[in-house]
Amino acid sequence: MEVMICDHFRSSPLSILSSSSSCFSASPRYHLSMLSYFPSLRLKPSSSSVSCSLMEETHNQGRTKFMDFPFVSSAQKNLMVDLVSTLENRFHSQLLPCTLPLDVQYYQSQTATAQASLHIRSASNESPVDFVLGSWVHSELPTGGSLDITSLSAYLNSSTDAPNFVFEMIRSSPTMLVLILDLPPRKDLVLWPDDLKTFYEDTQLDTHRQALERVPEVQPYFSSSLYIRTVSSPTAIMVRIGTENGGVERMEEIIRDHLHPISKQVLGIWLDRCACAKRDVGEAEIAYLKKRDGLIRNKTIEIDLGSSFPRLFGPEVANRVLEAIKGYFTV
Amino acid sequence: MEVMICDHFRSSPLSILSSSSSCFSASPRYHLSMLSYFPSLRLKPSSSSVSCSLMEETHNQGRTKFMDFPFVSSAQKNLMVDLVSTLENRFHSQLLPCTLPLDVQYYQSQTATAQASLHIRSASNESPVDFVLGSWVHSELPTGGSLDITSLSAYLNSSTDAPNFVFEMIRSSPTMLVLILDLPPRKDLVLWPDDLKTFYEDTQLDTHRQALERVPEVQPYFSSSLYIRTVSSPTAIMVRIGTENGGVERMEEIIRDHLHPISKQVLGIWLDRCACAKRDVGEAEIAYLKKRDGLIRNKTIEIDLGSSFPRLFGPEVANRVLEAIKGYFTV
Repeated sequence: MEVMICDHFRSSPLSILSSSSSCFSASPRYHLSMLSYFPSLRLKPSSSSVSCSLMEETHNQGRTKFMDFPFVSSAQKNLMVDLVSTLENRFHSQLLPCTLPLDVQYYQSQTATAQASLHIRSASNESPVDFVLGSWVHSELPTGGSLDITSLSAYLNSSTDAPNFVFEMIRSSPTMLVLILDLPPRKDLVLWPDDLKTFYEDTQLDTHRQALERVPEVQPYFSSSLYIRTVSSPTAIMVRIGTENGGVERMEEIIRDHLHPISKQVLGIWLDRCACAKRDVGEAEIAYLKKRDGLIRNKTIEIDLGSSFPRLFGPEVANRVLEAIKGYFTV
Repeated sequence: MEVMICDHFRSSPLSILSSSSSCFSASPRYHLSMLSYFPSLRLKPSSSSVSCSLMEETHNQGRTKFMDFPFVSSAQKNLMVDLVSTLENRFHSQLLPCTLPLDVQYYQSQTATAQASLHIRSASNESPVDFVLGSWVHSELPTGGSLDITSLSAYLNSSTDAPNFVFEMIRSSPTMLVLILDLPPRKDLVLWPDDLKTFYEDTQLDTHRQALERVPEVQPYFSSSLYIRTVSSPTAIMVRIGTENGGVERMEEIIRDHLHPISKQVLGIWLDRCACAKRDVGEAEIAYLKKRDGLIRNKTIEIDLGSSFPRLFGPEVANRVLEAIKGYFTV
């Protein structure tokens, strides 16, 4: 999630996330897309004394809150629930319960103007999945509206060199939405042109980006973070959708008729052709993947959690969330 | 140079370069931007018996033809001549004469519907520059108009790890222009985040992209070649400019008032902060640079020279050009 909310957010994609500007006192600069882009959270039960039933209870309680998506429209909720369910169903038996503390699975700012849900499920050893991370953030805006971000990402471990999956919707008003949908590569595609062919060309991934850009209200979106641009794939869908003319109904229509099917198709490609594809990864490559994944995760903490969280939720809550998940960021 | 010329070129940036479509029989799919993006042409006098005066004569003859830019508008010619002169003046004493055969410095298709100039200057050993490549292509279109491409690129050798310089204007009609202006990185910026900071963030490169996108007629341009997207930098300027409403006068105005100053500024950044910056490059890094540069150059020949040249100029001319410059592509 990465939006610098400005009054002129609606008019200029380039003004979003301008590094130097501070648009209002709380200065909520979101960079959770960094979080959804990269982190690898190795989620293990925090102690052997945690009973299975307690673990499940914690999981279920947080999951209910997460899957509720209480602040977004029905089309957006349907899309999120469908993506989460599809992904969870595919890896069903491999996914472990979410064992984050309850006050990290759900947290809010001291004044309750911002609240968030975080749901992370690590996977068992035989899985290619490292972890799956879902979240939503709701924040009241000084202008009277609200900002809502929903995201889902899935990260593979070094048993495979396939790309990860990233999905994020950033809605700063009922008629303004930024969508980030990508399979960010885990290797330098210049050095591995075969991977470019396998994961991006042969899968026809770009046709989905092209289809979306044919919708009149859809414009390319450029993140102000050069790092986010750097880690994204050549077929990354990064778009800004404005429906000032058609209103909230048109936005619902676009989400239902375009974003939903396209996102499902891209997730399908990731599941079938990336996550579940048999890959031979040698030892040198494992070391390379660990190094590259590790660098990205460190950068994530630096850019995202280190700056955006405190501004959004205050230092105390931000620290609690940060400490709870920090350990998982090591590769 | 990379444009698949289609009848609907004017209306849809996404239709450009569609890999599978063939819009007319000659199917002129241009990929010379691959050429301007990557090749390293180690230009050495072809034999010690070549006299200096003959070499200079060959150089001057080809250079006059190149610098004439006979088919483009005055604003475009001014811009090209300014960029070439600025670059050549900076490296003046280091640049060797162009020793390509005259029928490679200028060539045309059998029916003379397509003609081109190619000007390559290698640099002396003490230079950070590997070579400078300039070119123009003029091709009549079956629709009655013409396609004109002008490009300038400069490539550094492995004494430095700084990015290269790429500039290309692809004009498919008097009111339609694609501009590619980039400092493509020579290292994976995910593994070298300090380089991202040094060359792209600290230099404020993205402000120039942003400035250009504020011009109403300017739209982002997505190359259909995922490889070109992959090798480009996070601040790459890839735009499509359409002035159907303002006509050719408006295009001239945009080139003069926006493209020209922005291109000069980006070239200035490249000269001052990249090409001429002191960089410490260790042996392992040299090997890495050679490997990565080499992979890109091989891909260039495969994608660009191997397919576009024969279609544009016929197999015989294409082979002649290809053979003359092939040797330079080895790192």
